[in-house]
This record gives sequence, structure tokens and C-alpha cells, in this order.
Amino acid sequence: MDIDGLDEEFITTDPDVLEAYRFDQAGLCPAGKPVALARPRHTDEVVRILAYAHEHRVPVVPQGARTGLSGGANAVDGAILLSLERMNRILAIDEVNHTATVQPGVVNSVLSAAVAEKNLFYPPDPGSWESSTIGGNVATNAGGLCCVKYGVTSDFVRALEVVLADGRVLRTGTATAKGVAGYDLARLFTGSEGTLGVITEVTLALRPAAEKPLTAIGFFPSPASACTAVTEYLSTGARPSILEFMDKVSVDAVSAYRDLGFPPDVGAVLIAQSDRGPHQAAADLEAFADAARACGATEVIVATDQAESDLLIEARRLVGVAMERLGERLVDDVCVPRSRLAELIEGVAAISAEYDVLIPCAGHAGDGNIHPNVAFDRADPDSVRRGQAAFDAIMDLGLRLGGTITGEHGVGTLKRSWLETELGEVGVSVHQAVKRAFDPHGILNPGKVVR
Amino acid sequence: MDIDGLDEEFITTDPDVLEAYRFDQAGLCPAGKPVALARPRHTDEVVRILAYAHEHRVPVVPQGARTGLSGGANAVDGAILLSLERMNRILAIDEVNHTATVQPGVVNSVLSAAVAEKNLFYPPDPGSWESSTIGGNVATNAGGLCCVKYGVTSDFVRALEVVLADGRVLRTGTATAKGVAGYDLARLFTGSEGTLGVITEVTLALRPAAEKPLTAIGFFPSPASACTAVTEYLSTGARPSILEFMDKVSVDAVSAYRDLGFPPDVGAVLIAQSDRGPHQAAADLEAFADAARACGATEVIVATDQAESDLLIEARRLVGVAMERLGERLVDDVCVPRSRLAELIEGVAAISAEYDVLIPCAGHAGDGNIHPNVAFDRADPDSVRRGQAAFDAIMDLGLRLGGTITGEHGVGTLKRSWLETELGEVGVSVHQAVKRAFDPHGILNPGKVVR
Ligand SMILES: Cc1cc2nc3c(=O)[nH]c(=O)nc-3n(C[C@H](O)[C@H](O)[C@H](O)COP(=O)(O)OP(=O)(O)OC[C@H]3O[C@@H](n4cnc5c(N)ncnc54)[C@H](O)[C@@H]3O)c2cc1C
Ligand SMILES: Cc1cc2nc3c(=O)[nH]c(=O)nc-3n(C[C@H](O)[C@H](O)[C@H](O)COP(=O)(O)OP(=O)(O)OC[C@H]3O[C@@H](n4cnc5c(N)ncnc54)[C@H](O)[C@@H]3O)c2cc1C
Repeated sequence: MDIDGLDEEFITTDPDVLEAYRFDQAGLCPAGKPVALARPRHTDEVVRILAYAHEHRVPVVPQGARTGLSGGANAVDGAILLSLERMNRILAIDEVNHTATVQPGVVNSVLSAAVAEKNLFYPPDPGSWESSTIGGNVATNAGGLCCVKYGVTSDFVRALEVVLADGRVLRTGTATAKGVAGYDLARLFTGSEGTLGVITEVTLALRPAAEKPLTAIGFFPSPASACTAVTEYLSTGARPSILEFMDKVSVDAVSAYRDLGFPPDVGAVLIAQSDRGPHQAAADLEAFADAARACGATEVIVATDQAESDLLIEARRLVGVAMERLGERLVDDVCVPRSRLAELIEGVAAISAEYDVLIPCAGHAGDGNIHPNVAFDRADPDSVRRGQAAFDAIMDLGLRLGGTITGEHGVGTLKRSWLETELGEVGVSVHQAVKRAFDPHGILNPGKVVR
Repeated sequence: MDIDGLDEEFITTDPDVLEAYRFDQAGLCPAGKPVALARPRHTDEVVRILAYAHEHRVPVVPQGARTGLSGGANAVDGAILLSLERMNRILAIDEVNHTATVQPGVVNSVLSAAVAEKNLFYPPDPGSWESSTIGGNVATNAGGLCCVKYGVTSDFVRALEVVLADGRVLRTGTATAKGVAGYDLARLFTGSEGTLGVITEVTLALRPAAEKPLTAIGFFPSPASACTAVTEYLSTGARPSILEFMDKVSVDAVSAYRDLGFPPDVGAVLIAQSDRGPHQAAADLEAFADAARACGATEVIVATDQAESDLLIEARRLVGVAMERLGERLVDDVCVPRSRLAELIEGVAAISAEYDVLIPCAGHAGDGNIHPNVAFDRADPDSVRRGQAAFDAIMDLGLRLGGTITGEHGVGTLKRSWLETELGEVGVSVHQAVKRAFDPHGILNPGKVVR
């Protein structure tokens, strides 16, 4: 592959390297055979790659850290994989205006630590925060634990530099707190999963550092009682910084992985956090405890210090690793109005029984966003078939409950046909028109999100 | 005008009525001659109007309450004016999920009052809130006083029903707290000023009611000292629910209109509010007073009760009416990083001197969003010329300070050529491609925002 002005250092066709970059973290998502991997360090190089790809009609697949859960970063046949991992410089942290400007390959936790040093706070905290990139977070509009109070990635995106399909460089958005000059293209690129342009620079809003949080855990006899506690607690006007749900299988899996001293025979747990300062946080968690008990919680523990507080959050963060021991999983990501949360969890239990698959559920209960983890055995075709059928049935259920097929993980290839169901005929046709307007030859991440 | 199935009640060609609907509130913006005014009550009727307009290539100008300040709702030659004012029903307020679903003609203050009755809160509060419509607020992505804490209209838009240029009905977005299924079209329509589709239904996020706010006012010897106090105060991590600026001319105009007992010879004022409950609010305003005094404030008054608190906000809200007495005004709306606020205000003073025009400044200081009010005399061509030149010089200054030509009022026709300057060549071409994708025949609000 001979791209004008591109050093060998930045592009490789080594089969072993290509193989290592073919997949993201999604289960059961096919990947094609790429022709090259480019790892540029400057926007200029991205421009050259896209100009070449545009001219020669070569597909380009943008990649961050490939922690995605929908196959969005998977290779397609004949593609140049365009990894942004080397564009990993924090360009500026503006302490007066509370913004940061970064290259797309900066890892979320690296940015979070850098701004924390300046007493600032970048809230979006996907479970993958120690490895996923800001570019990937923007391209998927990633959520996380503290979205319930602070919002998702798009709520923090102010301005972007984007290399368009034909290699032109677009700067869009404004670093200011507000701005309505023209269409909100920065928001359109956010969540577009690499299908409309390659993000090469991001200006993010920051917040002043939050106060040290305090955490509580409530143990419930059943998922339904925990779900009722969510709506009851939030009806009081509470603004928890975290409000997470784990069902029995998730709790048991975590307890098997690391003993956290949880009581036996738990039906479900809620983990709540407040970061409104020690005084207010204690009152907030007391209100949580009241709501939890009123809804049947058998026990509520409010952490008395930081270490205990961190341990409770750790329990939630461990779900992923703990589940991995249960075998392979297809992670679903439906989001419903929170009043329908109990119906969702109960419906998933029914689906689990119907298709005879294990489906532990954990997720961002305060947002109505749950991740049913459909377990399957790749070696057993029938298990794969049942797992996929259950996975589909869960999205169907989510839509019937007035929800969406994806709250934060995105569409990729995994949910493309379900996206069509959710959007409907007019929605699909408008999506295709937008895609064509930005990428007339369809070279950007083809086959992802829209057909 | 004979549009299939459209009752006479819904469409008129009466010249007097048409004349009354030709203009919004922008100064010096031309308006064309419309051929009809349609005032539908149902989405179905909007569909028929657009299908007709699409077939016959008739321009359509969507209108809310025509309080816009950029000519966005002004008539164009040969157009059907499509007023949404009769589609004014609140369809649902969901007390558990904290959302409201409304038709576009619902007036902002009507919705605010309706949700307040249910102990909920719809924050976006443009100065025009007692007359402007939710549809207009969404189409302009309106701001207001409490954006500094709560964000602008787009931060509350969850889902939209939009009638497309060819009459098809698109439902986009999701009522859920999160959702990433496909491109964020709801956000793209928000702020598109009627150029991409007609908004016929809006689902908005609400918040739990805030606590009763407490307000303080700081009197400063100069605008620069007030601007420094803004950055100093916000550097402490403060999250005021309002942080407004008024310069000497604005203060004097308000004092002349209604005596508020302000000290004489004020250089500028800041009005700050906290709604974090009585205890915390008092502490917040004490911190504001400290920052203000450290930056040279000659006096800071913290309201001790609700009535006093309301009076201070009233002072800010009266700027508009009070200014009207100074003659005609061209309202500018630049937004800069707040660290550049002092340079902006001082630059405007220099422009005022250079062009010999009065330019009082007031605005949303916490967001860096200031409204220089360029006064002019329509009867005097030289005054008009100087006024327009000053108006342009202010936008040029805003851009040079790293800002945007419009923080919240939008582009319309008033700022269309300046938008091109701000977006640059690539930005303009992408805007045009998006416009074409949604409105291939250019019938939707032609000549507004993009060419
Ligand atoms: C353990 C674990 C926990 C997770 N927890 C969460 C969670 O809590 N919330 C959540 O939302 N997600 C979560 N995820 C999913 C995933 O981490 C996020 O989607 C993340 O944002 C992906 O970032 P990445 O850098 O890995 O991007 P990748 O996976 O490499 O790419 C994701 C998509 O973005 C595109 N892309 C990447 N970079 C760019 C760019 N610069 N320009 C244009 N397009 C680009 C790719 O083409 C692809 O479509 C989790 C994943 C794992 C493995
Ligand atoms: C005294 C005063 C104070 C103001 N204060 C503020 C302020 O603090 N913050 C602020 O942001 N603005 C402010 N404004 C400007 C104005 O009120 C806002 O832009 C408001 O959102 C316009 O709403 P409207 O219903 O009057 O819309 P209109 O003026 O009728 O229309 C505005 C634009 O939206 C389009 N539009 C309207 N309805 C629809 C629809 N249903 N579908 C598609 N397009 C539509 C129109 O074509 C036009 O381009 C103020 C104006 C006045 C007169």
C-alpha cells in the first residue's frame, strides 16, 4: 500500500498485526479481511489516508481501543483499519473556561486523571474507561455509571475536528458554553460510529471537581422490588450520582469472584451514590435507604468511609470480569422509561426461561438502561442459536416497553437490522440520506449502523 | 389557495392578516410577500400543506410566536406562512419518568406552569418565555437565564415528530433517558430554524422542582471588574442557577423605567442566584459576595427573602422593555469563552465610540453570552449605516476572541453572511449538503441560515 507521503512506520500490511486489529469486544460479530492498518500521529496523515481511500474507493474502518460491544470497529473486507491510538496527546486543559482539547486516542482514564489534577472533572465513565479512547467514546456517545446525574458523552462535546470522507478537514462546534451558529454537526458526528467522518480532535466541557462521594447498597428480595425503589427514590427529586442495579446472578458471580461479605440469598441489589458533600450526601443516602426499605429492602448499608464506599462501586465494576468466568456473553443494552424497568427485568427472566439460556442483568437503573448478558457456548450451535434468539427477544421487549434497542453501546453490525425496526421506514430513509450527504461513495465504515 | 382537505378555517389569504404575520422581532430584517397563512391544528394538516408545497415548489415558512430576533420567521416571497400557534396542546406530563410531550405551539410559560403544578421543572427560560412557543424554542435551541446551570433547550429535547419537506412524518429520538440508536437527528433539527423540517410534537425531559432560589446583586465600578468576578466566582466550583451582567447604560435605563433603589454611578452589575436550598444558597451567595468584593465590587446585596430576590431578577428581565424606550435596537448575541468577557465588553465600548452609536450590554455572563443592543434611528440612513457597521464589528470581535456570532438567537437572515465567515468553506459546504439531503427542492424556509 503506497499512500503518498505516508511513512512505513504509519502503515502496515503484516498479517499478524492485521489479525490482532480485526475485532472489537462484541460477541458473535463477523469481521472481514483488512488490507492494511494505519496508525497516524497527525491529522495530516488522516487526511492523506482518506484522500487516498476516497480516490481509490477503499473502505476505511476507524478504530479507537476496540473495546466496542457492537462490532462497530470490526474490519470489513478490503478495508484500511485506521487506528487513532497514536494520536493520544492532551492538547490543552483550560482551567478558567473548564474545557479540555484532546486528540482522539487519549484514553478516558488518562484524561480524567489529568483534569482531576487541576481540580476539574470529566464525568463520562464507561466501564471501559481504563482502556477506551475519547474518540471512541465520542463516536459511540458512550455512557457510564455517573450519567444518571451528569449526562452522557455528547453532553460534554463542544467542538470537533473531523476529517471527512473525501479528506477535507471540518472544524465544527464552538469552545464556548453556548452556540447556535448553524446546524449542530458536532452532535451529529457524536454517536455516528465512524460512518460520517473521522474524529481527529475533541474539545470537551469539564466541570469543577465533585465532592468525595458516599455510597450505599440496598439488598432486595426480588428484582421487582429493587426497580420500584428506583422510581420511588427518584420521585423524591433525588439526584444520585450513581444508581446501579445488579440481579441475583450478577451478585452471585461477583461474590464468587471476590467475597464482599454480602448476605446470602439476595434477590437483587441497588447501589446508590451521592457526591453532594458529606453533609448532604448522608441525607441523600438516608432518603435512599427510606425508599429502599419502603419497597421491601431487607437490608441497606450506608458506607461510613471512602474505602467502604469504593468497595461498593467496585462490586458493580466487577460484574464484567466476574461474568467472563461464566463463559461467552452477548451483551444487550436496552433502555426503557424507568417506570417500565420491572417489566423489563421480569420479561428478561421469562425470555431466559423460554430459550433456556442464562441472562444475568446489571446496569444503569436510574436511566432505565440495563445490560442483559446473554450467556452462550460458541462450541454448541444450538446454544448460539438460542442465545441469539434470546438477544433478539430482549430488544423486541425493550421496544414494546417504549424503549430503545441501545442505550449506550451503539448499533455497529450487531444491531443493524434491529435499528431498522426501531427507526421505521421514514427513519431509515432519512438516515441513508444523511449518510450519502457525508459519504457519497460509502467508504466510511461501510455496513455499520446503516446499509 | 386550494390545498386538498384543508378547511378554509385553517388557511387564509386575507392581506391584512398576512401583513400581521410577515415579521418576527428582529431589527432591520427584510420580509417578502407571502401568498397564504396556514394555521393547522393537527399533524395531518401540516402533512397536507407540505405535500402540496413540495409538489408545487411553494416555499413554506414555519412560525411559532414570531418573537425571534434574527428574521428566521419572516415571510419570503410567494411563501405559505405555516403558523403552529394553534397546535398548542400539552399532550402528556409523565410524573414518574419526568417528561412532557407537547404540540409545538405550547407557550413556554404555559408548560412551565403546568409542570410546576406537578412539582416538576422545565428550566429553559428565554426572556420571551411568556410568549414564545416550545416549537420556536426547539427550532432556535433557545437559551435563557438559568442555562448557566441547567443547559439550553437542546439539553431537554428527547424526541421529536417532524414533518419533512415532502410531507413524510418522521419520529426521531427516544423518550428514554439515554439512547444511541442511529444518528442524533432530534439534535440536528434542534436549532435548525425551520430549514430542515417542521416540528409537530416534542418530548422534553423535565427535572424535579428546584428549591426556592436566593438572589444577590453586586455593584462594580467598571465592566472589567464585574467580568473578572465572573471567572473568579466560577473558578471556585460554584454552580449558580443565574449569573447575569448589566452595564451602566442598561442599569440606568432600568432605573429610569422603574426605581429599584440602586446606588448612583454604577459601572456594571452582576446578578447571581443559587437554588440549592436556603442553607446552601446563603453560603453560595456569600462566596459570590467574597469574589465580587475581591474584584472591586463597591457593594453586594444578598436578598433576605423571596420578594427581594424576585425584584433583583426583575431588574434583569426589565432590560428589554427599558431599552425599547431608547429607540430601535439591533440585538447582537455573541458568546465568547468567559475568560474573554472583559475584552468583549471593552471592545464593544470601543466600537460604540468608533461608530458613534449607543450600545448597552447585558447578558448571560456565566456563559460568556452577551447581548450588545445597538441603538439606531430608522429615519436616519446614516444612523442605520453606522448601527449596522457596529453590529458587524461586534461579531468580528466575537470571532477574534474565540467565540461565536450567536449564542442563542440564531442566524435567520440577519447573520447569514456572518455564519459563512464563522463556518468557513468546508463548514458551509457540509451545511449545504445537509440542507439538500433534507430539503432537495429548497422549499423549507428558503434563504434562512444557509443559502
Ligand atoms: C468491559 C467493558 C465495559 C464497557 N462499559 C461501557 C459503558 O459503561 N458505557 C458505554 O457506553 N460503553 C461501554 N463499553 C463499550 C465501549 O467501551 C464503548 O463503546 C467505548 O466508547 C468504545 O471506545 P473505543 O476507543 O474502544 O472505540 P472502538 O471500539 O475502537 O470503536 C467504537 C466505534 O467508534 C468508531 N470510532 C472510534 N474512534 C473513532 C474516531 N476517532 N473517529 C470516528 N470514529 C471512531 C469505530 O469505528 C467504532 O464504530 C464497555 C466495553 C467493555 C469491553
Ligand atoms: C423580549 C425578547 C426576549 C428574548 N429572550 C431570549 C432569550 O433569553 N434567549 C433566547 O434564546 N432567545 C430569546 N429571544 C428570541 C426568541 O424569543 C427565541 O428565539 C424563541 O425561541 C422564538 O420562539 P417563537 O415561538 O417566537 O419562534 P419564531 O420566532 O416564530 O420562530 C423562530 C424560528 O424557528 C422556526 N420555527 C418556529 N416554530 C417552528 C416549528 N414548529 N418547526 C420548525 N421551525 C419552527 C421559524 O421558522 C424561525 O426560523 C427573545 C426575544 C424577545 C422578543
